[in-house]
Amino acid sequence: MNGLPQTNFQPEDAINPVVRLSTLASDDMTQVEAVISERVDSERTPLIASVARYLVEAGGKRIRPLITVAAARMLDYDGKGHHSLAAAVEFIHSATLLHDDVVDESELRRGKKPANQVYGNAHSVLVGDFLFARAFMLMVDAGNMQALHVLSRAAAVIAEGEVRQLEAVRDIDLSRDDYVAIIDAKTAALFAAAAQVSPILSGAGPELEHALETYGRELGLAFQLVDDALDYGGLAADLGKNVGDDFREGKMTLPLVLAVEQADAEERKFWQRVITDPNGQRDGDLEEAVKLLNKHGALDATLEAARTHAANAVKALEAAPKNVWSDSLAALAEFVVERAY
Amino acid sequence: MNGLPQTNFQPEDAINPVVRLSTLASDDMTQVEAVISERVDSERTPLIASVARYLVEAGGKRIRPLITVAAARMLDYDGKGHHSLAAAVEFIHSATLLHDDVVDESELRRGKKPANQVYGNAHSVLVGDFLFARAFMLMVDAGNMQALHVLSRAAAVIAEGEVRQLEAVRDIDLSRDDYVAIIDAKTAALFAAAAQVSPILSGAGPELEHALETYGRELGLAFQLVDDALDYGGLAADLGKNVGDDFREGKMTLPLVLAVEQADAEERKFWQRVITDPNGQRDGDLEEAVKLLNKHGALDATLEAARTHAANAVKALEAAPKNVWSDSLAALAEFVVERAY
Repeated sequence: MNGLPQTNFQPEDAINPVVRLSTLASDDMTQVEAVISERVDSERTPLIASVARYLVEAGGKRIRPLITVAAARMLDYDGKGHHSLAAAVEFIHSATLLHDDVVDESELRRGKKPANQVYGNAHSVLVGDFLFARAFMLMVDAGNMQALHVLSRAAAVIAEGEVRQLEAVRDIDLSRDDYVAIIDAKTAALFAAAAQVSPILSGAGPELEHALETYGRELGLAFQLVDDALDYGGLAADLGKNVGDDFREGKMTLPLVLAVEQADAEERKFWQRVITDPNGQRDGDLEEAVKLLNKHGALDATLEAARTHAANAVKALEAAPKNVWSDSLAALAEFVVERAY
Repeated sequence: MNGLPQTNFQPEDAINPVVRLSTLASDDMTQVEAVISERVDSERTPLIASVARYLVEAGGKRIRPLITVAAARMLDYDGKGHHSLAAAVEFIHSATLLHDDVVDESELRRGKKPANQVYGNAHSVLVGDFLFARAFMLMVDAGNMQALHVLSRAAAVIAEGEVRQLEAVRDIDLSRDDYVAIIDAKTAALFAAAAQVSPILSGAGPELEHALETYGRELGLAFQLVDDALDYGGLAADLGKNVGDDFREGKMTLPLVLAVEQADAEERKFWQRVITDPNGQRDGDLEEAVKLLNKHGALDATLEAARTHAANAVKALEAAPKNVWSDSLAALAEFVVERAY
């Protein structure tokens, strides 16, 4: 790991913290999966059931529901409400992914689409709505009005964040603060809510609610920053096939924000062409962009910011009981950053 | 009104029941508007606020919130929860309209769109999500878990209905029962929930919950049937500019279902060309379609069905207290059909 910031990652950690936490929480997660499987179903509309099932069951590491479950266990919660709320959190996440597809397609301005892709759009919107509604039905099952408030507010904040991100597309003068406000809303708010609902269910009191909310928010910020760095291949600059989406869409993420801030006149012209102009990109521009990001240490600085947020997440847990669950949550926060290396 | 089925509509009713009910409920509706205006706002995202405000404030007769308010007043409810729930119902309705735009555009396969229209798509999805989420926050304000259950279930059922409608597009063999099941879900479910939440809030008991739920559902069915007849110009066959949308989209509504059921071999060929084939329509086909609808009395039969549902709505109110509010709700159900003439 030539010259990279040191991490505590060792070969024996090859079973990563997500897998370890999933194993630790397997009894609860089996219940959560049962709830998901039951509630994703639409007897009267087999098509919804199959699209929703595909989305919700096909992969996904269930990081958000794992956080809800682990936080509940950490606080010795002995009810069943965390299963419904964990499933609700995953449904909100899945609905957001479905609606993102529609939004991202629009941004890309792919123009005329084949019919199946167009019909896909309509189904993405409607199946997303179905999952949103089912999420709220699950929250009603949990029967806690404060948890309902926290999760419904998070859903509204996510939509606000997505719109602000849309407005910031191709805006090379986006500030770092505005960028952080966007990811705080579009990504971190749901992590924060996923963590906060467990102390609410447990009646653990405002101090622990605040601590877990902070844990979730900081972990969510770290998670998104790492994602944004990985979209440029991360520090390994591995420009594989899932890389460069943000760049092609003109999406302003922190690596770009930082590189533009430090650009000289010629570099700024480059950014104006490839980001501001929707039709300005040519072959080789992504490679050139990555070169400029590295020249200004923008990926390093992005991951440094991620590390800071992950450390804040771990620190927030100091207010919580020390047990195998809080240890696992701390390890999860650290892993979110480790995966970038 | 040459040969049309008789109605009790008289000139002195020129102030229609919606207007009369709005006037009767004006104190409550002022509160509902204040809640809507406050909750449609997004401080951090002015664009959301303006799109949402435009949609929610620009026109709209507020029929659904009027039903919630009138039902609460009819039952002597003396709290404030009906204002939040009425606003929530309107937000769900508005979110559905926004998402319908995306879905309908897809159906129309208009192909390549100008950028502003494309960006409109993304914003329609996200502002719709914002309004959905805010609707749930409003329900939390009302603080009644059973009302939350009813409204979140309605939101899921609406999405199911929209998907089934999408699947039924261009399916000339759609049965009348399947059509009714679709409009029961996509339209009547929200009317039913809007009416049902008031007896829930009032603690009026299961008999009145059932009565109001039935009132709302039957009124909603009548409302949609009339809309579907009006899309072919109604009995006046007035093919103005807002007419023919369903036909152009190949949407199977009851007038079409009935005409296709009675089609002879040649007529069936016509329907196959103009409905089954997405590119089969030519100039003059709408006029020909209306001729066939009238030949088989399909618009008459559709409005007859609407009248039956409106009568069921009025009948359901027999279980409710007899007062100026129940009278107004009955008049509203009748007016829903009268507007077709």
